[in-house]
Amino acid sequence: MSRLLEQISSPEDLKKLNIRQSEALCVEIRDLLLRLISKTGGHLASNLGAVELTVALHRVFSTPEDQIVWDVGHQSYTHKILTGRREQMSSLRKKGGISGFPKPEESEHDAFIAGHSSTSISVANGLARAKSMKGEPGYVVAVIGDGALTGGMAYEALNNAARNRDRIIVVLNDNDMSISKNVGTLAQYLARIRSRPEYFAAKDHVNRTLRKVPGVGEPAARLLDASKSMMKSALYHSTLFEDFGFQYLGPVDGHNLENLCAVFARAKAVAGPVLVHVKTVKGKGYTFAEKNPDAYHGVSSFQVETGNPDISGQDSFSVHFGRALSALAEKDTRICAVTAAMKYGTGLQEFSQKFPERFYDVGIAEEHGVTFCAGLAAGGELPVFAVYSSFLQRGYDQLIHDGAVGGYHLVLGIDRAGLVGEDGETHQGLFDAAFLSAIPGVTLFAPVTYRELEEDLEAALYRCRGVAAVRYPRGGECTGLPVPFRRLDGAELYGRGDILLVTYGKLTGQALKAAADLEERGLAVQVCRLTRLLPFPKEAVQAALAKKEIWFAEEGIKNGGIGQMMGARLLEAGFSGRFFLRAAEGFVPQATVKEALQGLGLDGDSLADWVAGAENGAEHAEPGEEGKR
Amino acid sequence: MSRLLEQISSPEDLKKLNIRQSEALCVEIRDLLLRLISKTGGHLASNLGAVELTVALHRVFSTPEDQIVWDVGHQSYTHKILTGRREQMSSLRKKGGISGFPKPEESEHDAFIAGHSSTSISVANGLARAKSMKGEPGYVVAVIGDGALTGGMAYEALNNAARNRDRIIVVLNDNDMSISKNVGTLAQYLARIRSRPEYFAAKDHVNRTLRKVPGVGEPAARLLDASKSMMKSALYHSTLFEDFGFQYLGPVDGHNLENLCAVFARAKAVAGPVLVHVKTVKGKGYTFAEKNPDAYHGVSSFQVETGNPDISGQDSFSVHFGRALSALAEKDTRICAVTAAMKYGTGLQEFSQKFPERFYDVGIAEEHGVTFCAGLAAGGELPVFAVYSSFLQRGYDQLIHDGAVGGYHLVLGIDRAGLVGEDGETHQGLFDAAFLSAIPGVTLFAPVTYRELEEDLEAALYRCRGVAAVRYPRGGECTGLPVPFRRLDGAELYGRGDILLVTYGKLTGQALKAAADLEERGLAVQVCRLTRLLPFPKEAVQAALAKKEIWFAEEGIKNGGIGQMMGARLLEAGFSGRFFLRAAEGFVPQATVKEALQGLGLDGDSLADWVAGAENGAEHAEPGEEGKR
Repeated sequence: MSRLLEQISSPEDLKKLNIRQSEALCVEIRDLLLRLISKTGGHLASNLGAVELTVALHRVFSTPEDQIVWDVGHQSYTHKILTGRREQMSSLRKKGGISGFPKPEESEHDAFIAGHSSTSISVANGLARAKSMKGEPGYVVAVIGDGALTGGMAYEALNNAARNRDRIIVVLNDNDMSISKNVGTLAQYLARIRSRPEYFAAKDHVNRTLRKVPGVGEPAARLLDASKSMMKSALYHSTLFEDFGFQYLGPVDGHNLENLCAVFARAKAVAGPVLVHVKTVKGKGYTFAEKNPDAYHGVSSFQVETGNPDISGQDSFSVHFGRALSALAEKDTRICAVTAAMKYGTGLQEFSQKFPERFYDVGIAEEHGVTFCAGLAAGGELPVFAVYSSFLQRGYDQLIHDGAVGGYHLVLGIDRAGLVGEDGETHQGLFDAAFLSAIPGVTLFAPVTYRELEEDLEAALYRCRGVAAVRYPRGGECTGLPVPFRRLDGAELYGRGDILLVTYGKLTGQALKAAADLEERGLAVQVCRLTRLLPFPKEAVQAALAKKEIWFAEEGIKNGGIGQMMGARLLEAGFSGRFFLRAAEGFVPQATVKEALQGLGLDGDSLADWVAGAENGAEHAEPGEEGKR
Repeated sequence: MSRLLEQISSPEDLKKLNIRQSEALCVEIRDLLLRLISKTGGHLASNLGAVELTVALHRVFSTPEDQIVWDVGHQSYTHKILTGRREQMSSLRKKGGISGFPKPEESEHDAFIAGHSSTSISVANGLARAKSMKGEPGYVVAVIGDGALTGGMAYEALNNAARNRDRIIVVLNDNDMSISKNVGTLAQYLARIRSRPEYFAAKDHVNRTLRKVPGVGEPAARLLDASKSMMKSALYHSTLFEDFGFQYLGPVDGHNLENLCAVFARAKAVAGPVLVHVKTVKGKGYTFAEKNPDAYHGVSSFQVETGNPDISGQDSFSVHFGRALSALAEKDTRICAVTAAMKYGTGLQEFSQKFPERFYDVGIAEEHGVTFCAGLAAGGELPVFAVYSSFLQRGYDQLIHDGAVGGYHLVLGIDRAGLVGEDGETHQGLFDAAFLSAIPGVTLFAPVTYRELEEDLEAALYRCRGVAAVRYPRGGECTGLPVPFRRLDGAELYGRGDILLVTYGKLTGQALKAAADLEERGLAVQVCRLTRLLPFPKEAVQAALAKKEIWFAEEGIKNGGIGQMMGARLLEAGFSGRFFLRAAEGFVPQATVKEALQGLGLDGDSLADWVAGAENGAEHAEPGEEGKR
């Protein structure tokens, strides 16, 4: 089955195959991808769509001297298979295994990390400049999807990348579809140019034929090139990309390996920056995924034969968030939902169907998403931006400048807050509580049950001003939450004891487990769960003042986080007991959420040992080592 | 002199003037602007360039029903003069006075706040959607400069704004120059379309004449419109803006009031979104500013007759930063300097002249700026991004994702860190220490003298890994710094005492003043100045443990800031004395830096009273009130 694939342990091996063998190799790769991702989970549709594209790139270019920068990077599985990692692919997205994204520490063929969208042209610009400045040979290729092209950074980079005439080749992997269907005008524009005659119909052939005429051919071809570029600098331009100084080649069929190789070879021959427009089909070769690429964007695992993706189904915070928002929008016509290309991920399908005129998918454009919400709010609407914690980082200045300074009332539904697991460092939602805490006037709720999520969403909409946010984890609710011993403004206390274990979010379950464990060991521990992180609940500080020890466990970054805020407030309020803080002190690599919690010492068992250990006279926990990575 | 201007107390009054009178009014306004800004300081060149544009907008549109969203907003002085604020303009940029930017709380004619660039189209999109959803009448006009158009947000917004066919009018105020000269390919593209024949030559006239033919005229004109739009949807497009679904009108002379009024009237008549391309001259009407618009971008004050701008001159951190970087770049060819349209503000003129091949002005594109640096670093270069603290917020995700996760070594020169004064809320550099603290692996220095700046820059380049930053305030160095009692790793101690006053940055001068004052009052206070904020100096915590009281004064935001970090670390380390923290707890409005410090209780006198007050048995400082704005 993998007859050809077994011969490929580096891109150089690939170059030994002829074009027909390479086409057969693509079939083998697609088969491997299906078998692989059905077991490990991962980004199926985008990888199936990029098989020929990747094979063609590695036939024409020579990494690592040439550098390929994958945008977002979740389509790089074929690249990994071809660059010596085929046999390790079964460890994909597992702890200590192969990353689902490019990672330079994994291979010299991975030029740069990627996980967030729209960064590749900026990176390529930097790499290409460095090559030119040092006089080093080689091309830099940025592979960017049409979805990633909706991000503002990509445009900032387009505006800069062609200036120095470095040998940058931008490959636009245009599958007419990013994560959800693109609805921006750029998508319409791309659809128009996509429908032009295929690139290889005539003009390149003419040019190549001309160049072969001895003596006069080459100068004549150059003259032809020059006259074309004169035409281009005339009043009317041909493509948007040419406005940015790129020579445009395309469109080309992204599943025709021969044409792909030819267009990349042509791109190499152009003296300056080139954009190659490649048309691909997401999910290509797997009927279920071709028909329903959204469902197969990122999957856990599925059955190859039936195509049944094991999507988390009805029982997740995302689903309940979407349902709750729809219910509220039924009664309040001011409510608008905004997403940055994450309609499915954030549970907004129902909303988008019921209220299409109040649903806005802005593309991968968190900056615009936030400020658009501020504009809607200034116009009297009630905007709700549903966004993953780690992607909200993109809208930070907009939250400060367009949300908070003006005091516009906008609501954030922050999904995937806390550990997300297999996607690793670039996707963990560990920073939102810290970076939001610095913004004046922000309200931040941290529900742990669906019921609470609904209540908090309503509170954020109707009982808050300015920027109000609800953060909730990937996956499902905390079950078996006990009846609180006391309810405070912004916190709940469970059980009794001189020792207080403070936490919030999904870690609550671990803290309660630890408290039960410690009770068995003879230690009375009260658990304090913060239901609201910002403004920080004063009553939680008051309640804590009476305790002799406070242990704060945080599924978030330590520096600048909520634990430190509480510690400082306790000290300001005259607390003189002992205070211990455990949180993430660096980026958290891929692993299951459970493994990651264990790695951080934040699972129930570790928390119990932590608290008990110090009680038994073991050494105090050291203040966190800084600069850990 | 202000004969006509005195008749204008609202935009309605302006509509009573005929076109000739309005032209005369522009002369009066220009005269007023010159007299005004020469005294108050502010953005001269951009305001002189926008006089006719603003008068035309207010003649054709009717605010507040129509809404004008000024991008960046520092060109809105004429707008303020025409909307009832003429007599208050002498309080421009002063404490309690008129803001140098649009501010809805100041006037119903200011549709939205602005201070950072490239936000207007997103805001207008939101406002226009809200109008449409509510069925409210009126147009939304976004006025955006060619410089602001280099920001990715503007593009994200262009991709979304035309989708709903709302009545959005984007006015591109194209002065061929943002803050520094634009050098991106977009600028070249705009230059090309700017050179097209003026819009009003013929086609509009034909159309209008046609419409006047009774009976057949209107349908014929519509047919003409339809055939034009069919042509536009053909293979080759006319302008980039049409790709985004905007009807393009222009270019038009931005100093010809009659033509401006006509083109805006035409824009109103178009059913969907329109972009009007207006050519203006920055500094128009004031020879000194026309010739040297960069020097007059933002000025303190100047002499109208000689045109001598009182630029801070040689003695500022910015200048010394640029000089130090140039000196290092002389010896190390890997050093590259990157700026986001702030060559002058960040002191990089000399570098740009000496090392043009290693100097990159990327436009108003902080996202790209950061990731481009990461790419350069991955390619083996030593990139330094010089950026204002408040604008760095735009590159937050890129610092995390493209800088820190991958561990790429890039250096930030963070200018205007701390209070900046007259530009107010949107420009204060109060957040960088807090938001950088959450990013794993970041090093952050806080020099207070030029000598220290040089040393820290060198340390950031050669003795750090990953993201290393040097932050320094607007203006000049701390003078008269005493010889330290002790030097620690990352901190310095001055004087002796049981009471420790901790601070960093420019506040050091105030803290030393307070300590001297307190000494006279009989209190022995030691001052601890943090020379490095991140990683937080452990030795500073150790030194503090022995004290009975610790007072932390921070010219930065309180929540998530350095003071809270130290407080929590002290508590973790077993400190049981008293801890007090004073910092900004909300946005800080315009005022001189001195006034702002007084307002925050952070000037020397207030700090002395603060420390002495508690000593004398007065009430403890309360833990900060949350949610203040």
